[in-house]
Amino acid sequence: MTMVKVGIIGASGYTGGELVRILANHPEAEVTAITSRTHAGKKLEEVFPGFAGWDGPVFQGSDSPEAVAGCDLVFLAVPHGVAMNLAPELLAKGQKVIDLGADFRFRDAAVFEEWYKHSHAEKELTKNAVYGLPELYRASIRQASLVGNPGCYPTSIILGCYPFIKAGVIDVNRIIIDSKSGVSGAGRKAELSYMYPELFGNFKAYGIPNHRHTPEIEQELSRLSGTEVKVSFTPHLLPVSRGILTTLHLALIEDLTTAEAEAIVAETYRGEPFVKLIASPALPELKSVVGTNGCHIGVRVDSRTRQLIVISVIDNMVKGASGQAVQNMNLMMGLPEQMGLVQWPVYP
Amino acid sequence: MTMVKVGIIGASGYTGGELVRILANHPEAEVTAITSRTHAGKKLEEVFPGFAGWDGPVFQGSDSPEAVAGCDLVFLAVPHGVAMNLAPELLAKGQKVIDLGADFRFRDAAVFEEWYKHSHAEKELTKNAVYGLPELYRASIRQASLVGNPGCYPTSIILGCYPFIKAGVIDVNRIIIDSKSGVSGAGRKAELSYMYPELFGNFKAYGIPNHRHTPEIEQELSRLSGTEVKVSFTPHLLPVSRGILTTLHLALIEDLTTAEAEAIVAETYRGEPFVKLIASPALPELKSVVGTNGCHIGVRVDSRTRQLIVISVIDNMVKGASGQAVQNMNLMMGLPEQMGLVQWPVYP
Amino acid sequence: MTMVKVGIIGASGYTGGELVRILANHPEAEVTAITSRTHAGKKLEEVFPGFAGWDGPVFQGSDSPEAVAGCDLVFLAVPHGVAMNLAPELLAKGQKVIDLGADFRFRDAAVFEEWYKHSHAEKELTKNAVYGLPELYRASIRQASLVGNPGCYPTSIILGCYPFIKAGVIDVNRIIIDSKSGVSGAGRKAELSYMYPELFGNFKAYGIPNHRHTPEIEQELSRLSGTEVKVSFTPHLLPVSRGILTTLHLALIEDLTTAEAEAIVAETYRGEPFVKLIASPALPELKSVVGTNGCHIGVRVDSRTRQLIVISVIDNMVKGASGQAVQNMNLMMGLPEQMGLVQWPVYP
Amino acid sequence: MTMVKVGIIGASGYTGGELVRILANHPEAEVTAITSRTHAGKKLEEVFPGFAGWDGPVFQGSDSPEAVAGCDLVFLAVPHGVAMNLAPELLAKGQKVIDLGADFRFRDAAVFEEWYKHSHAEKELTKNAVYGLPELYRASIRQASLVGNPGCYPTSIILGCYPFIKAGVIDVNRIIIDSKSGVSGAGRKAELSYMYPELFGNFKAYGIPNHRHTPEIEQELSRLSGTEVKVSFTPHLLPVSRGILTTLHLALIEDLTTAEAEAIVAETYRGEPFVKLIASPALPELKSVVGTNGCHIGVRVDSRTRQLIVISVIDNMVKGASGQAVQNMNLMMGLPEQMGLVQWPVYP
Repeated sequence: MTMVKVGIIGASGYTGGELVRILANHPEAEVTAITSRTHAGKKLEEVFPGFAGWDGPVFQGSDSPEAVAGCDLVFLAVPHGVAMNLAPELLAKGQKVIDLGADFRFRDAAVFEEWYKHSHAEKELTKNAVYGLPELYRASIRQASLVGNPGCYPTSIILGCYPFIKAGVIDVNRIIIDSKSGVSGAGRKAELSYMYPELFGNFKAYGIPNHRHTPEIEQELSRLSGTEVKVSFTPHLLPVSRGILTTLHLALIEDLTTAEAEAIVAETYRGEPFVKLIASPALPELKSVVGTNGCHIGVRVDSRTRQLIVISVIDNMVKGASGQAVQNMNLMMGLPEQMGLVQWPVYP
Repeated sequence: MTMVKVGIIGASGYTGGELVRILANHPEAEVTAITSRTHAGKKLEEVFPGFAGWDGPVFQGSDSPEAVAGCDLVFLAVPHGVAMNLAPELLAKGQKVIDLGADFRFRDAAVFEEWYKHSHAEKELTKNAVYGLPELYRASIRQASLVGNPGCYPTSIILGCYPFIKAGVIDVNRIIIDSKSGVSGAGRKAELSYMYPELFGNFKAYGIPNHRHTPEIEQELSRLSGTEVKVSFTPHLLPVSRGILTTLHLALIEDLTTAEAEAIVAETYRGEPFVKLIASPALPELKSVVGTNGCHIGVRVDSRTRQLIVISVIDNMVKGASGQAVQNMNLMMGLPEQMGLVQWPVYP
Repeated sequence: MTMVKVGIIGASGYTGGELVRILANHPEAEVTAITSRTHAGKKLEEVFPGFAGWDGPVFQGSDSPEAVAGCDLVFLAVPHGVAMNLAPELLAKGQKVIDLGADFRFRDAAVFEEWYKHSHAEKELTKNAVYGLPELYRASIRQASLVGNPGCYPTSIILGCYPFIKAGVIDVNRIIIDSKSGVSGAGRKAELSYMYPELFGNFKAYGIPNHRHTPEIEQELSRLSGTEVKVSFTPHLLPVSRGILTTLHLALIEDLTTAEAEAIVAETYRGEPFVKLIASPALPELKSVVGTNGCHIGVRVDSRTRQLIVISVIDNMVKGASGQAVQNMNLMMGLPEQMGLVQWPVYP
Repeated sequence: MTMVKVGIIGASGYTGGELVRILANHPEAEVTAITSRTHAGKKLEEVFPGFAGWDGPVFQGSDSPEAVAGCDLVFLAVPHGVAMNLAPELLAKGQKVIDLGADFRFRDAAVFEEWYKHSHAEKELTKNAVYGLPELYRASIRQASLVGNPGCYPTSIILGCYPFIKAGVIDVNRIIIDSKSGVSGAGRKAELSYMYPELFGNFKAYGIPNHRHTPEIEQELSRLSGTEVKVSFTPHLLPVSRGILTTLHLALIEDLTTAEAEAIVAETYRGEPFVKLIASPALPELKSVVGTNGCHIGVRVDSRTRQLIVISVIDNMVKGASGQAVQNMNLMMGLPEQMGLVQWPVYP
């Protein structure tokens, strides 16, 4: 058995560290190169103390493709606008690329440019990149050289909406999204508003009404529904480190019971390894998926108002980022999709 | 100056303890009797260690009216179904009564009976009780002998909706309410699902789609709009002790800017001592009101979807319970409305 | 390869659930029976929602040995006083037994009886049970049929003291232990003092000066030092779910530098798979071991006062309970000691 | 009645904001000037959103004495090394000065210079400044023009040790201090190690063995005992925003019962408005003092090891900083010592 050689450009951030954590237990992949512009020469445990004793490579200080020469697949865990400059050379060398940022999530580069206020250097390439949500695009991902790994919020939202758009039971023009995310979603950087005392015991909405994940959600829901969908998206900051819970408020266009809505979810995700229906009377809980690649979905019909309430939970760092990226890697490299990703949550 | 003599029946729960905390600093009221069936004879600090050194009365073990004989005003902080049996005798003795539970919140006792699965012993009395939301019913509260103090969720929701129902700019048939509450809202009782390890780092929805606060919200929004309103209400459990943040998703029936929406809030609450507009670009934060009787409201119009997003925050124990009860007491006793309630939040 | 068949008596508590979590990823062990007196017939995910989709056995309602018939090894995760009545029959059937409670931790049953206020039904058996701390008793554990799995506090404390007692550099009559534990250590039971609102933002000492783990610590430190050791042990309750950090305040009997103290730790645990020195300037952090079987140790010499400060961290549920139990299982069953236990912490 | 006019230099940090919070409810003091070099012209609520609606002054952008001209008393809430340059001019103008930093805490400027690595510009002035711990120096504070307000850790430690040094029952050469502080003690600044995700669920020791509060503790304990005391001080970072719990491990030099130790505390602090004995079986809890100027002390004798364990809790922002500063202000201005400081904790 040959191990897949993996490089991670930008491994000192949270999603980079999480890739190492997951891949350290992957039986057929090996992290052979990690980079960080600010930590050249350091051991991983100097940056993430939980890796004390890890025997992998030290940080290289360059984010250039040379740093990951020899790797079969390269994860890009860099700020948006950076990956677009790295991907072409990596692809030219025959390396597969998974970008955890936003650069290759949009089929239309103009949408990226509008929402991210950054010109796109690879307008053709992004057209052909595959949106890395395996539950929707598994076959294409298997063939892809370049994958744009989905955002954390969009993953939780699209997986929650998909069954009901497919079933044609909701009004796609009235999708209300109320999401709550742990603070790790903001990345590993010192900022006053994310300091411990500021957020302890606190809770707030932010970034409304124009959060950058909106166009990504709309791109995918529009594709699924075959019509141009606009959504109202309100994210909030939960005083926890990890996890996203999304509450979808959907207007039913026909009468439906909770049991029927559950059947739609169960049917849609039958055989999916990571997406599970949490059947009534239970409801999904954030902590049930933290540290895992799972997505739990629960539903309730409010017949008094004909609203369908869908709750989905993921770990923003795993199914919302690095775990999904490894799931994509498995597909791209012809490995079993669940390899290295079967893990039960640490509880309580 | 004569001090108002205050009795608290059920003072060993969270709202009871909070009444004592607030009244301890009230210049013209004095807690002269506290009761608890399980803590007869104990000092308050044996039940709430933060009251070490408090020189008020010890717990009486009976919840009967005799325990609060001589009080001018009695707060009832007892489970629903209990207050209805205590109020008549207290009122007959000329004592004013504020019930922090649900017994006297509904003008129509049948609604109480349907949602609380408990027959109502005082159907006439509840018709004439005043719903204790001073921002709506100040004049009536001043005249009232019996006040049904609002629920925590309804307070945050009604105060957020009121300006826009009054202004006639939203579709009252499409009100979506997504609320998040700290755990103290569940009361002071040992239950596995509220244990620290179970909720640490956790977050979930609960009680959907039929939370008991729904009819209270609908009663008041229907009155305000002059039409029968049904709302979709989804509460969630935040991993904090205190505070409620409600996100209202409202459908505009005419174009409005965020600035215009802010003006509507500002105009509605002009002169109100406790309700404040948090103007853009800021948004309300939970911790800004914890420990205080404040309600902060912020708004954003999402013109792409013609949705109005309203965020309101209160402390569920203060403006959502005991603080509002003291505000009602001040009105009922002819005291300045803010007396004993001016406090800035402990931050961070 | 034959899988080791494992039974867990008392699998609905935290340590029971944690055993399932760890064993679910163990390549050569299989959980074939779980019991819970209160959850007979239920699926594991009804009790621990994070196990949605787990395909193992349902709960049997009896805690009797019949429930685990056919198992090669049985974990007892039951209250103290219960295991002593189960172990003899299991052993008689040739099953190996690991007790996660206190029944078999003491060589002298009289010590158990004094501190736990419970008579010991198996005074002979406990004499020959092995104290399951592999770093001290690896060879004996390999031969053992019955292991008394160490307490969580004692594990963190003994591993921190051992290098310095062995090196003979501290005064064993002046050992001061200041430990801080997450709330999961109190077990899964509804109690007012462990409710979320009570502990949120809170911190306190408890159980001093006579915590039940004291005699277990003293038994082991006395053995190591060859003299009767008495320790001053002060535990505290941290507002987190998991993890123990112990601060040992040790009086040096000779001058030592921090570097020399670090060398003593490194030398003592050279080759140990789970115990790591965290070298200066870093210090151990709780979260670096949560979810793992690791024990991290850091030291500082305060030459001004000739004190040696030793910090050790473990996850009370893993190295402090279920992970150490699986480590013992591996030794008892002739499996590689680390099997199923190599995991990096979920961070942040 | 004339209001005391108060200025706060450095009011955008946590201790500055806390001074405003406390003084806002002080019946005989008024904040007339606040400064912040980075927030010139802003309203307080732009920096601390909880002050929405506060009607005090806006920030002046200069930290110079002109900014607080006309104030009767000035609080300096600035980094160490800054206050020493401001105090002389303020004093020369007849203003009283309370420095919340370290500049004027040491009678011997050389100690400051050694531990803070900063030369002292006012070696004479610091000799005559009064150490602002009212329980020890009430009479001197009443006469003082310049007070060095104690550090947070030293306050909790000195108040815990004082009764037993005074009673002569402990070995002052063997004082072991194990303290745990909330994160707000680190101040309001963006630093990676204090980010929410880094500290969530985490706990660690730091700054050992040479934390800067050590010489301040030793200065005071030496004075109290009349001999040169050196202490072993180990601080830890609690994952909460506020509060310090100190566990003192003291070696008894004579036999003492817990009841006798409690009597020593009670006797020492008889009549003190803010220091309370928490008698057995209760133990002090952090949350009982958060938001208040209280210090709660509990004790236990471990007769097996002849150790005395003393637990003290304070709010690091109140009794450990701004509350104590206002207590000092009351003394210096001839006001009742408790004025503006009587507050019960927000619980739960």
